[in-house]
Amino acid sequence: MRQLLVIVLAAGEGTRMRSARPKVLHAVAGRPMVAHVLDAALEAGAAHVAVVIGPDHDAVAAEVRRVAPQAEVFVQAERRGTAHAVLAARAALERGFDDVVVMYGDTPLVQPETIAALRAPLTEGAAVAVLGFRPPDPTGYGRLVTEGGELVAIREEKEASAEERAIGLCNAGLMALDGRAALDLLGRVDDANAKQEFYLTDVVAIARALGGRAGVCEVAAEDVAGVNSRAQLAEAEAIFQRRLRARVLEAGVTLVAPETVFLSADTSFGRDVIVEPNVCFGPGVRVEDGATIRAFSHVEGAHVGPGAIVGPFARLRPGAELGQGVHVGNFVEIKASDLAPGAKVNHLSYVGDSSVGANTNIGAGTITCNYDGFRKHRTVIGANAFVGTNSLLVAPVSVGDGAYIGTGSVITDDVPADALAIGRARQVNKPGLAARLRARLSAGLAPKK
Amino acid sequence: MRQLLVIVLAAGEGTRMRSARPKVLHAVAGRPMVAHVLDAALEAGAAHVAVVIGPDHDAVAAEVRRVAPQAEVFVQAERRGTAHAVLAARAALERGFDDVVVMYGDTPLVQPETIAALRAPLTEGAAVAVLGFRPPDPTGYGRLVTEGGELVAIREEKEASAEERAIGLCNAGLMALDGRAALDLLGRVDDANAKQEFYLTDVVAIARALGGRAGVCEVAAEDVAGVNSRAQLAEAEAIFQRRLRARVLEAGVTLVAPETVFLSADTSFGRDVIVEPNVCFGPGVRVEDGATIRAFSHVEGAHVGPGAIVGPFARLRPGAELGQGVHVGNFVEIKASDLAPGAKVNHLSYVGDSSVGANTNIGAGTITCNYDGFRKHRTVIGANAFVGTNSLLVAPVSVGDGAYIGTGSVITDDVPADALAIGRARQVNKPGLAARLRARLSAGLAPKK
Amino acid sequence: MRQLLVIVLAAGEGTRMRSARPKVLHAVAGRPMVAHVLDAALEAGAAHVAVVIGPDHDAVAAEVRRVAPQAEVFVQAERRGTAHAVLAARAALERGFDDVVVMYGDTPLVQPETIAALRAPLTEGAAVAVLGFRPPDPTGYGRLVTEGGELVAIREEKEASAEERAIGLCNAGLMALDGRAALDLLGRVDDANAKQEFYLTDVVAIARALGGRAGVCEVAAEDVAGVNSRAQLAEAEAIFQRRLRARVLEAGVTLVAPETVFLSADTSFGRDVIVEPNVCFGPGVRVEDGATIRAFSHVEGAHVGPGAIVGPFARLRPGAELGQGVHVGNFVEIKASDLAPGAKVNHLSYVGDSSVGANTNIGAGTITCNYDGFRKHRTVIGANAFVGTNSLLVAPVSVGDGAYIGTGSVITDDVPADALAIGRARQVNKPGLAARLRARLSAGLAPKK
Repeated sequence: MRQLLVIVLAAGEGTRMRSARPKVLHAVAGRPMVAHVLDAALEAGAAHVAVVIGPDHDAVAAEVRRVAPQAEVFVQAERRGTAHAVLAARAALERGFDDVVVMYGDTPLVQPETIAALRAPLTEGAAVAVLGFRPPDPTGYGRLVTEGGELVAIREEKEASAEERAIGLCNAGLMALDGRAALDLLGRVDDANAKQEFYLTDVVAIARALGGRAGVCEVAAEDVAGVNSRAQLAEAEAIFQRRLRARVLEAGVTLVAPETVFLSADTSFGRDVIVEPNVCFGPGVRVEDGATIRAFSHVEGAHVGPGAIVGPFARLRPGAELGQGVHVGNFVEIKASDLAPGAKVNHLSYVGDSSVGANTNIGAGTITCNYDGFRKHRTVIGANAFVGTNSLLVAPVSVGDGAYIGTGSVITDDVPADALAIGRARQVNKPGLAARLRARLSAGLAPKK
Repeated sequence: MRQLLVIVLAAGEGTRMRSARPKVLHAVAGRPMVAHVLDAALEAGAAHVAVVIGPDHDAVAAEVRRVAPQAEVFVQAERRGTAHAVLAARAALERGFDDVVVMYGDTPLVQPETIAALRAPLTEGAAVAVLGFRPPDPTGYGRLVTEGGELVAIREEKEASAEERAIGLCNAGLMALDGRAALDLLGRVDDANAKQEFYLTDVVAIARALGGRAGVCEVAAEDVAGVNSRAQLAEAEAIFQRRLRARVLEAGVTLVAPETVFLSADTSFGRDVIVEPNVCFGPGVRVEDGATIRAFSHVEGAHVGPGAIVGPFARLRPGAELGQGVHVGNFVEIKASDLAPGAKVNHLSYVGDSSVGANTNIGAGTITCNYDGFRKHRTVIGANAFVGTNSLLVAPVSVGDGAYIGTGSVITDDVPADALAIGRARQVNKPGLAARLRARLSAGLAPKK
Repeated sequence: MRQLLVIVLAAGEGTRMRSARPKVLHAVAGRPMVAHVLDAALEAGAAHVAVVIGPDHDAVAAEVRRVAPQAEVFVQAERRGTAHAVLAARAALERGFDDVVVMYGDTPLVQPETIAALRAPLTEGAAVAVLGFRPPDPTGYGRLVTEGGELVAIREEKEASAEERAIGLCNAGLMALDGRAALDLLGRVDDANAKQEFYLTDVVAIARALGGRAGVCEVAAEDVAGVNSRAQLAEAEAIFQRRLRARVLEAGVTLVAPETVFLSADTSFGRDVIVEPNVCFGPGVRVEDGATIRAFSHVEGAHVGPGAIVGPFARLRPGAELGQGVHVGNFVEIKASDLAPGAKVNHLSYVGDSSVGANTNIGAGTITCNYDGFRKHRTVIGANAFVGTNSLLVAPVSVGDGAYIGTGSVITDDVPADALAIGRARQVNKPGLAARLRARLSAGLAPKK
């Protein structure tokens, strides 16, 4: 098998993003763009990955280490063109690989198959291969001049003849190089041009001048879309989401209105799941067979068991574990809590750092008071318990199986199994006092407290 | 008037749906596809409806009975082609009708007008009529070969000449048959083909061979779109929603962002209603003149009176009856409750199984505790009452006109009119204790309870 | 500088809106259409603005006074055509201006640049200038017949030759007139036509007959889109939102899904703000650098400080002032309240008419009880305080710096700094009673209260 080195150029400043953040750290589907590119490189089987970053871009280096600890990071001290950037990774090139693929940190939609396609001409003996795409309007792009399936030249717009401008196939930027020739080819690139930069595209002419062949392969425009502005970032997000939604539909999930469902790359669904309109899935979500995620729900880091019903207006946060048939209803937040099969939390509740037993019913307005201002504590509720409306469970505390908590109780002590716990004041009616109170208030007086 | 028999073929397995559920039971606009087809058949004036289902599809039979109790259900034991499926309803055909129309359970966008158009050629003496449509790309569809407005043949893609492939008009599948000829024509269809199936399309050639005429009528592609995958289900939903929204806009409703409003077929609006972005309407909703449904609201089975304001972030569940000028605000759920004119429930409340009198104000955080773990009970609140913040009303309970409930009270006993009811503990301040508590907590000690 | 009079025709009845409200008062981006037109006129530097309204349209007059107090309102008593409407503003015309521009109250997408473009031919000596646009389908529009860059005629569809019907450039309706000639030209328009109306378009032929020149300038179709139905109102809203989103993206804001974010014309963002899907911004919102507005949030009249995090499911209402790094979480409503830097309100709370000190933590379910049924009162909470879960703060009340409020307390009296305040009943456990209660309930008996 041919050994592949991928060099990711990620040194761009991205001034059109108008951001304090390096461009390649802007996120698509909740994940920095450079991480998507690294994902594609690793999935395409790269034996080694080198990332070239700009000076003062420590945050990019940190993200690279997080996503691909095996990757090597190089700093391009000055920005002197793409060939110059590739040579910042000279140490990696010198180690010797069969194929070298140059990618960009700001093309988050590139796919492993894109890389495979780009390498194909190398296996057939080409010295270099270029990726082409057909934009709706080619104006401004370098045209790929081909002859008999081979690449003859990359012609920049301003140097192109009228005939060449009519070419629809444009240079996507990504390039594959024969690993044995790469350093030689790159070393011959010069900066004898208006901007005095070293252009990677010059490698094509150099390779051909040396008697080598240049290949070309075409991919869909969206696979190589680069992100230079927030508008393009939003377009990349839209394409990424369309891909994720198509995959999910294909797998047998009903998305009532796919364009209103936002997925993460790792969102996982069983069969016959129904997702209503307007649902956001953050990372780390698994939804099992037959579950329903109702409208206006926000789910991240959660596991939704078979047949469970979530929402509308539910929020599942990381560590929410919902068993079979659990119901989580409106204006309910679940965090770091296990809900055993059949448990129900239907209205206006916060359940955090808790475990709730099977078939237990948590009344509306219940809050687990897990935070004392310094630490979080756990609440443990047994099976078949009934937690009355607006109960406050001051953690650490436990409630036994079959216990019954009276409406509006503040539970600070453990409740034994089958016990009834109550902690509230007795109601007093004061006849006629509402009328007198209204009179005071309407006269602008304070009520007698 | 010509008597119409509609035969709905609903026996498909729908393997591309990747679902445990029969395909025709997947829903569009909250209603199974087959129900939409039955709706169209009944609205088109069908004297009789026969539905052909697959074996083990009892759930389809049940849905048919629910939507159209008068319909007759036939089981196609083996799946041997469309003509074979139609003949599963032989008993219905034998009763004799003027017109027979064959429809499909997986084309939920078909309209009564579609059926009327398809029948027209029969009234002019045709033995059979076929529905044509023009897909953006006809590849794969059977082409309708016509001559002088008459249908000469349905040519399958693989048997079509180059000239025939250039025909844009394709076979939608729906067919009308002269009721007196139908059994004879269907009986002549054979299975002398590669798949050994009995194809309904063969009826055209048979009728013509017997000297009959075949008509054709063209409809919009979307009217006859079939659903074979979740992606197509989502497309059908999108078209259905577009139709509903157009109807609603036409009637004088402002939809600020129509594409974000999800309607049911029966959602009913008065004049000058405003619906903000991101609102879902389930079945059974009626909104009267001048009401406003604000963003992020979810409304089903509810009646919203004139000038009422709902949301943002409100949920109205079945049985919510809002009188004139009622306000239901954010993070509020109303279920099976009447709110008299001028009542207000503005924040973070659950009102269920209740009635609330005119001009009564329900404070933030109020919950009607309608469920004791076994049964639901009612809460009755009079007019001009003031229910203080975070009141808990333990049903069954009643609160009289003009009563005033103190903040944070648990109300278990009836409150007389004009009485003030209070049920809460007195506040105690413990000077300096917060500082000491913080010291304990920050040292990792438990608070003294 | 040439003095400009803008005459806005706003007398249309708008029957296709099916509304009790005058058409020009229907809103785009939360602002009546006529206000957008007035905005454009004023930004284009109009020295004077006259608005012609229909009889019984006092509400339009009131809106005009609100938006442009300097504008003059004229009533067109009878609706006898556009030239007749313009002459309703005769008193304004008689005051003498260099340029007169006639606009329409139902074209809310018109821009100041549109007006500038329309005036350009006047500065070059034209007596009249007309605005042209190219609709996707010109059928039904008056065609602009030009010759050598000059307007020769406005040809109505039904009077156009086949050659003229092929013209794509259509009359947008807006017109500029030489101020010295305007009254004379308008006075010569007659009603010798089928409808016996006075058409403004006749001015072109009249001016040319008198030896004057007629200019034409072309603008994008969307700039002059008129609104005659709710569907067109929704289209105008969509275009308006697209413009606002593009501006915001350009300024360096990440909109994860731009098409799901609804903006107001005055929404203001710092750099590196992230807005997740499904967020609505009402008027008067300012979001500072590095803040994040999470999904499903609704924000109006609020100021979000640097690095603050809002949502998901948060509602900020007018007067919400969030300092640096404030967190407002799910199912939380903030109204007319200052939250100092580092304050947190993470779950299920209502904070209204309050001030919250720096780094204070407001527990889940906390409600400031600001309304006594007659008046609103303020709650003042100091810095570094801990407000326990489900605390109810009965305003007017103050809580000192560093105070600690116990879970479930009703706070009616001021809490000194560093004091612990508690107001709740003690919990009692009744062993075995839950089992007995269940037995009663399951037997259909009422619980012993």
